[in-house]
Formats: sequence, structure tokens, C-alpha cells
Amino acid sequence: MVTRLSKLFVRTLREDPSDAEVRSHKLLVRAGYIRRQAPGVFAWLPLGLRVKARLEQIIREEMARADAQEVHFPALMPRDPYEQTGRWDEYGDNIFRLQDRHGADYLLAPTHEEAFTLLVKDLYNSYKDLPLTIYQIQDKYRDEARPRAGLLRGREFTMKDAYSFDVNEEGLDKSYEAQRDAYERIFTRLGMEYAIVKADAGAMGGSRSEEFLHPTPVGEDTFVRSAGGYAANVEAYTTPVPEAIDYSDAPAPVVFDSPGTKTIETLVAHANEVLGDAPEGGWTAAHTLKNVVLAVVHPDGEREIVVVGIPGDRDIDEKRLEVAFAPAEAAPATPEDLAKIPALVPGFIGPWSAAGAVLGEESTSGVRYLVDPRIVDGSSWITGANEVDKHVRGVVAGRDFTVDGTIEAANVREGDLAPDGSGPVTLERGMEIGHIFQLGRKYAEALGLKVLDENGKLQTVTMGSYGIGVTRVMAAIAELSSDDKGLIWPGSIAPFDVHVVATGKGQEAYDLAAELIEGLEKARLDVLFDDRPKVSPGVKFGDAELLGVPQLVVVGRGAANGEVELWDRRSGERETMPVAEALARLTA
Amino acid sequence: MVTRLSKLFVRTLREDPSDAEVRSHKLLVRAGYIRRQAPGVFAWLPLGLRVKARLEQIIREEMARADAQEVHFPALMPRDPYEQTGRWDEYGDNIFRLQDRHGADYLLAPTHEEAFTLLVKDLYNSYKDLPLTIYQIQDKYRDEARPRAGLLRGREFTMKDAYSFDVNEEGLDKSYEAQRDAYERIFTRLGMEYAIVKADAGAMGGSRSEEFLHPTPVGEDTFVRSAGGYAANVEAYTTPVPEAIDYSDAPAPVVFDSPGTKTIETLVAHANEVLGDAPEGGWTAAHTLKNVVLAVVHPDGEREIVVVGIPGDRDIDEKRLEVAFAPAEAAPATPEDLAKIPALVPGFIGPWSAAGAVLGEESTSGVRYLVDPRIVDGSSWITGANEVDKHVRGVVAGRDFTVDGTIEAANVREGDLAPDGSGPVTLERGMEIGHIFQLGRKYAEALGLKVLDENGKLQTVTMGSYGIGVTRVMAAIAELSSDDKGLIWPGSIAPFDVHVVATGKGQEAYDLAAELIEGLEKARLDVLFDDRPKVSPGVKFGDAELLGVPQLVVVGRGAANGEVELWDRRSGERETMPVAEALARLTA
Repeated sequence: MVTRLSKLFVRTLREDPSDAEVRSHKLLVRAGYIRRQAPGVFAWLPLGLRVKARLEQIIREEMARADAQEVHFPALMPRDPYEQTGRWDEYGDNIFRLQDRHGADYLLAPTHEEAFTLLVKDLYNSYKDLPLTIYQIQDKYRDEARPRAGLLRGREFTMKDAYSFDVNEEGLDKSYEAQRDAYERIFTRLGMEYAIVKADAGAMGGSRSEEFLHPTPVGEDTFVRSAGGYAANVEAYTTPVPEAIDYSDAPAPVVFDSPGTKTIETLVAHANEVLGDAPEGGWTAAHTLKNVVLAVVHPDGEREIVVVGIPGDRDIDEKRLEVAFAPAEAAPATPEDLAKIPALVPGFIGPWSAAGAVLGEESTSGVRYLVDPRIVDGSSWITGANEVDKHVRGVVAGRDFTVDGTIEAANVREGDLAPDGSGPVTLERGMEIGHIFQLGRKYAEALGLKVLDENGKLQTVTMGSYGIGVTRVMAAIAELSSDDKGLIWPGSIAPFDVHVVATGKGQEAYDLAAELIEGLEKARLDVLFDDRPKVSPGVKFGDAELLGVPQLVVVGRGAANGEVELWDRRSGERETMPVAEALARLTA
Repeated sequence: MVTRLSKLFVRTLREDPSDAEVRSHKLLVRAGYIRRQAPGVFAWLPLGLRVKARLEQIIREEMARADAQEVHFPALMPRDPYEQTGRWDEYGDNIFRLQDRHGADYLLAPTHEEAFTLLVKDLYNSYKDLPLTIYQIQDKYRDEARPRAGLLRGREFTMKDAYSFDVNEEGLDKSYEAQRDAYERIFTRLGMEYAIVKADAGAMGGSRSEEFLHPTPVGEDTFVRSAGGYAANVEAYTTPVPEAIDYSDAPAPVVFDSPGTKTIETLVAHANEVLGDAPEGGWTAAHTLKNVVLAVVHPDGEREIVVVGIPGDRDIDEKRLEVAFAPAEAAPATPEDLAKIPALVPGFIGPWSAAGAVLGEESTSGVRYLVDPRIVDGSSWITGANEVDKHVRGVVAGRDFTVDGTIEAANVREGDLAPDGSGPVTLERGMEIGHIFQLGRKYAEALGLKVLDENGKLQTVTMGSYGIGVTRVMAAIAELSSDDKGLIWPGSIAPFDVHVVATGKGQEAYDLAAELIEGLEKARLDVLFDDRPKVSPGVKFGDAELLGVPQLVVVGRGAANGEVELWDRRSGERETMPVAEALARLTA
């Protein structure tokens, strides 16, 4: 098939759209792939739709290879199933809600776990029906507060979401692996570099959870990798726990005056001044135990004060903190919170005081005390003495205070060790392009999806969830596979296989181009033909670079000699050759 | 490709779903093609999605042949463009409206005229860019009060909607014809009988408007056809106007007593009793002029009283009346309305009275008087005398009363003449499967879509609109191409090309079926293989008939002799033959 650019419904723009902040958004608008209809809501022009359709086709083919069957749910969903799982409320402001003319509540579905679960419940009732994996490619909605990243994070977006249904964990693992393999094939076909990183399983309650991240400095996610193969996003990283230390010879703790040392920095400087027996290199933040007071709001509304202790050379990582307390929400305690617990003296908070247990001995103050996993028994710290202008040294964990548990809330740093022993990690940025995880029985339990097992007993089904943001992946490719002149699509999803540019005032170039295109069409290639008369070669070349078909052919000056120029959009290399050779190369 | 029924995500039902009223709804649910999610909102199972995808593919191919380019608009659309054309309010309760988290108004688009118009305005500005036809295949929304007909009339439904853009009428006519031809090709490929009928152009203001109707007794539309090729839906039928009659010798009107004759029936009986000079066959309703008082509410809220005169043997057709007054709405006048105009005496209303003009002579009473086109000058009538218990005979149109215009509001009957002289019409029922019409400049004017013409002057673009209800057409085919055992798909959109049913307890049948399927797959046919063990032949045959793949093959008893049975689902014919012959026939 040949499409003439003179007839194609497109208009390229020289200027970036004013509301675009990311490169994919700018280029997809400038190249005439999409147009904004409302914040985060786009119309698709023919070029955009072609790329999207090819991307969806690759996903469909790999889903079929993974024995996943396609279904399709409406965007407009009734409230009831979401009410049954509690998500109607949980979504808060993040979904679009509406009522029909009879006042019945609906939402525009951001995901369809409930609907998939209920559909399987409707159709199936025996272990013999399983395993089953079904998926859809469907337009979803999310009422983002400030949608600014174009297709990377829209309010309407296309997802491939798949769900697996199994009677037991072994089955779930197999279904999970089949989708994982399919994702690897999909991203490989798309030519996208990816890292599979451990992700937080979160409140979903499942066990395995992995994200496919495309490593890129513009990614919104941070993940860690070791040379030995460990990879996890920072929320899912778990600290390797040091061995406990024998503290039988450890000296008793000693309180010392530390006027005005409310920060780790001033405390360390003061310690190096007043404590005589500094270790080699002096006292450092790593010798101190920093205690942070948090207000944790539980889903039932209860407000709990929790103290978190971490080594003084680390900070609380907000994302890790969020995951550690989910579904509760943690924030720094307010002065009002602190005023209610006078034993906690801001700037001088410690797990122990000379006057008696404040936080130690099973939290006698009623405040939970959670520590970083590095605070192992026997480790010795300089920390607050719970008195104004006083700290204490030689405070030994497990001897001088006890804890209510550990918490993964401290930030992760380059050089921290991977938990699997595969060595130190590096920190990288990545863009999430897929997420697979084991949902377990959360939805099946909430909605009563059970099947009869081999012994005729009802078993609750266990599920997996597997998502790819189709429009997001397309935007990610546009973001990463482009330069300052425009888009550069991978061949697997380019809107056309070849873009032929005819230039010059005579008819020769157009005739030779037509001859070439006839050959390309016979080889079943999709061709875009820039046949526009009276448009300068410069404009044509600029448009060709902007539109991003990876294989360009220029038919111009050499046409009289039967020669054309092959132009590789990605490398920029241009090579003149007889038309027959060009045809042979393009159809090879 | 082969799909094993044992693995296919489907469950057939023996019972009709309780909420289904039409056959397509019952069968599509029972055969496992769709499942209800909410009133008029359905999920699509793999079988349903396959049929829908094939149907959409046919439409896409024919749109491409008609040089229409595919685009895609979001379902979630902002209020503003709909406000500019007045449709935000006009839709009333029929659309889903919602607000985002910032309180901005949105709707779920039932159609996208505004968006298409604005997109073209955004991209194009010259006559050289035109003609252009763009289309989408997209899920639309309509908040039906009582959605009960399954996919025939859902609240979420898939439409192919195309729009053409031209600088002048000649261009519009060409674009219109191209879509019209494409529709003929589409419905022919689908094997659907269709009639192209003139439709009311309505308030849209365009000139040509035609519907594609599938003639069927279960259709919701009535249309007329003549043997000579005229076809129109009843709303668009126009009455051939009889020639005026010379009334120079007509006797003067005579009032007569007609106590209690408030209906045409009692009036006719009374006339035959008291009027001596009855024509051959006696006085009939056709000799009377019935006057109906209507209250017409205009868009600006004005309530106008209008009297409509039609021959007494006809009734007001509500649909024709609606179209005749659109965008105003007409209803019978209330007793309160009548009380305000004492000259109108219920049961005895006429255009003229012995006491002086009530409605004649340019409507001296201020009430408009509109008549059926058959009330030509010189025609003579028995009608009300505008006095209680009195009628008048020999009232001649054009002599004894004048009218303010004609109106197409009387019902159409079998035997009425086509307006184009092609003879008498028959009345038939049909189901609307497509609608094409010339929008003209309504939207382009409202939204400022202009292009520069050859002389550098701005011209408002003229548009056409072309719709096919994709899910509705699929339901229509299910409705019509089915029997009491189940669905019978046309080959062009069947979910599979061949359905192979293996029966029997031995392995032979399954092996022979596998051999046959291998051959079918080599010929690139899509095969459904009923490989279920321990399922009786009766159940398998029942499911095969219900699912509706038109070409069935049974591999059973004859398998030992290498024989299979070809089974034509439509005709019911079954024929035994060697497997090689079956393969040859199926792949021919």
C-alpha cells in the first residue's frame, strides 16, 4: 500500500505546543500523530493510529503465544463491584464518577480487576476450567490532578491488562512466568531496553511483583541493580541485615551535655569536640542513631505516633516510607502530636534515657519504635537522651533498648549491598513500561470466586495481574527513540516501512519514485510517498525527519541516471545507488 | 490457527437470560459472545470480539477504498465545543455528563461532529487540502431510558462515523457518493439485504439524507417502496400533490345539523342519513376534512396553537408530525388551550363558518391553519361548521377558505403513490443499519471552519456525515441470521472459518480430526476444534449449532474408514465423504 503525503491527513508544526513539557508530547503533536482535546485527553490522527495499531498487534500476537485470550470490558462500569472490594472509596479523587438518568452510580474504569473476577465466576466453576489467562486492550480513565506529560501520563490511556486464574500457587507461578516471558518478547520486538525489577507487592497481598523498567535518565522511577543480577525499585529493595554483635564487653552508656545540638551535623561536630576517644576518622553521622517521630494515619482514621530510628548518615526515603506503612499513611509528627508525649524531646529523642525507659522495654510509653534493619543487637550508638541539651553514647541495641520491629524506610545509596549477596548496587532511573504481579486471593475472596477442586471441595481461586500501558509505551519509545529533528520509530511499529521523498521540478524523479514504489508494494511494504509538488526539498527532508519513518529514500537529482539515495534516519547515513539495488536492499 | 474448545473462554447456556427481549440478545448471551455488565452495557467474550473485529476489518477495508482515513477521538470530551453548537443542552437526559476533580464539565460523547470539525480547522486552511473524508471506529455512549434490546440499542455501542469536508456542493455530492458506494459494498460483503431509503434531513439543514435499512418484520422503522424504485422512510415520504380542481360550477356550502357527531365515524353515518345526494358508494371518511388542534412548543418556549386539516380517512402519523414541526415539538392541544380560542368548537372544527372566517382569510383568528397536500384548491369537503352540532358540506378549498401552508403529517398507506411517479407504494418494516447525510455548513459555521478558495477568499466548508452502528449491525445479523437452535454467521464475519467436532470414545476420531485441521491450518483457515473429552455428541452438536460457525465438520463413527461429515449449518445438510475430499472442499 502506498499513502501519498499530499493526501494524508496530517500537518506538521515547526513550534512545540505550549502545553507540552516532555519530548514525546512535543514531537507527537508536532509530527501530527496526536492532538489535545482536553488536559490529558488526545485525539489520534492517522499516523498515530497506525503506530498504535502495530504496537497492539505485537502485544496480541505475544498474548496469543502465551495462551491468553482477548476479551473486552466497557469503560463505563457500575459502582457495585467496586463497592464490594472497597475501591469505590479508595480511589478518592483519582477516578471519574458519574450517574445515569436514574441516579445510579457509575465510574470510568481505571482498572477492571473486579469485572474480570466476576466474569470468570459467571462462566467457570471447576478446577478443570483452569488455568485461564484473559486480557483486554482497552481505553482507561484516571482523573490525574495535573496531566502534563502527554501520553506518558494521560487521563484517557490505553492499557493491555491481563489476569490469570489458577487453583493453586504452582499454577499461578506458571501463569506468571508465561506472561513474564511474553513481556520479554514484546519489549524485545519493540527494541526497548528493559530491566525487570522487584517491585513492592503492596497492599495487594500477593507475593511476586515485578516491574519492567526502561532505564533512562528521564524516568520517574529509581531502581537499584547489582552487577550480579539483582534489580529492584527502591521501594522493594530490602536491606541485608548485618550479624548481631557480641556486646558482653561493651561499656555502659554515658550521658553527655550537648547544648543546642538538634541536628546530626551539630551533634557530630560536638561529639568530636567533647568525646575524647573518637574512632579512627573521628565520630561521624554513621555512629549516631537518628529518631524521627511520625504520625501514621490508619485506614480506619486512627492517628498513631510512631518513632523510627535510622543511622544518622541516612535519610527517610518518602517512597519507601509510604510502602512500609501502606495502606496507612505516614507523615512527620506535628508540634501538637509531640506536645502530647512530653517524654519525646525534639532534637534529643533517644530510645532510652537515664531517667528510665521511654521507648525501650516494650514501648512503655505506648509509642511504637521501629528501626532500620542495620540497628542490630549489639550495635552501639550515640543518640538522644530524651532530655533537653543531652545526648548519650554507648547505647547498645538489645541491651539498652528493645524495638517493636524493623522498617525499610531509610534511603538506598550507591554501594549498598544487594540482599541476595550479588554485590554492591548502583542507582538508576527508569520508566515503568510494564508491571506483573501476583494478586493472590484478594479479589477472588472479596467477590466469591471459587471452583470445585479434584475432591469436590470449593477452593478460592488465586490470580495474577499483568499490565502494559500501550499509549505509555508508545510515548516512551517516542521519548527515547528520537533526536532534536524528530521521531525515529523502530521498524516494528513505524507507521510506514519506507518513506519515499521525491524532489525536483521535473517529472523524472516522480516517475522513478513511482517505479520504486511499485516494487515496494509488490513486496507488501507500506510506503509513504512525499509527492507534494511545489514543496521545497528542505521542507520535505525536515518533515521526513520529523515523522520518523526509519527508512527513507530520496529520489531527486540522480533520477536522470536511475539513481536514488537510501537514507537511514537513525544513523543519518545516506548512500546513492541504482534504483534496482535500493529496491533489493529495502525488500531484503 | 486452531482454537480448542476445551480451552476457549466460553460457556454456553441452555436458558435465555431473563432480561433479554430480542433474539440477538438471547443468542449472543447464550452462545457466550457477550455478558451484561450494567443495563445496555456489555463485556465482550473471545467469540464476540472475533466477530466484531472481522466486521470492523471489512469496514476499514471499504473505508480505505473510499479514500477515507482513520482517526480516533476520546470518549471523554469537554463541554465547550458542544456548548458552541448548542448540543450540550439539546441532548437533555440522553447523554452521560460528568465533572473532573476541578469541576470542569465533560460528557461521554454520543457523536463527534464538533470534534471532527475542530480537528480539520486545526490542521487545514486551504481548498487544496480538500476533499477530505476521515472516520473513526469508536465506543460511544447514550443514556437510554430503558435499554432492553441488547446490542441493538445499548448505552455503550461501537460506531463507525465518517465525516467529509468539501469546499462546495459538487464536492460534497462526490464525497457522499463515495461513502454511499462503500456502504453498499460493506453490506453486500456482510450478506445483508438492504434498502436505501430517503430519510428526513431534519434540523441538520443538509439536503440529501438516506438510511440503509435492512427489511425485516422486527425492524423498528417503517418505510415505503414502489416497484419502480422509490424508497423512503415514512417521515421522508412526500405526498404527490393532486392537480387543482376547477370549482367555477361548485355549489355554495350548506350548513346542516349534525347533533352529537363528534367523530368522523358518526359524522359519516349521519351524512349518509341526512344528505340526499350521496355519491356512488355513499359518503365516506374520505369526503370529510378532519381538523386537529395542536399545541406546538417552539425551541424558545413559545406555545403556539396550530390547526392541521387532513382527509378524514387518514390519521396524524406521530413520527411524520414530529419531523414536520422539528425542532419545535407538537402535541394535541389541551382543554385549556382550546378554552382560550372559543371559535374552535371541539368536534365541530372547520376552516370556515357561516358566521364568518374563523381560520380562513389569512387566519384572522391568529391561529395557523396547515393542511395535508391533498387538500388542493377546488377540492370539496364535509367539515365542521365551528358551531356545536353543526357541520357544513360543499366547502371548497381556495374558495371558502385559505390555508397557511401544507404539512406532511397524515399517515402513509399501502397503495399511496410514490412522489416520483413510480407507482403505488408498499409499507415495510426495516432496521436501520446505516445513515448517510449531508450536514451542510451547520457545524462549520458554528465552529468557524473556513478555508481559502482559489481566489484567496475564505469559504465555509460543507460537510457530510456517514454512520454505521458496528455493534448494532452485528446484533442485526445475529437477529436475522439465526434459527431456534442458534446463530448462523455469514462466512465473512464468522468467528471461525470451520468448526470441527470430534466425537466418540476412541482416539481415532481425534486423530483424524487433527489430520484434517493440519490441512485447514496450512490453508490459513481459522479452526475451532471441539476436542472436549467426556462430552456427549448431543451436547457438542447443540453447542455447534448455538455458536453458529457456518461450516461444521463432524469426525465420528466414520473415522475408522477415514470419513468425515460436512455439515452446512445454514441448510442443515450433512454429507459423508473421505477426509481428503472434505479438506479439498473446505479449502476451495
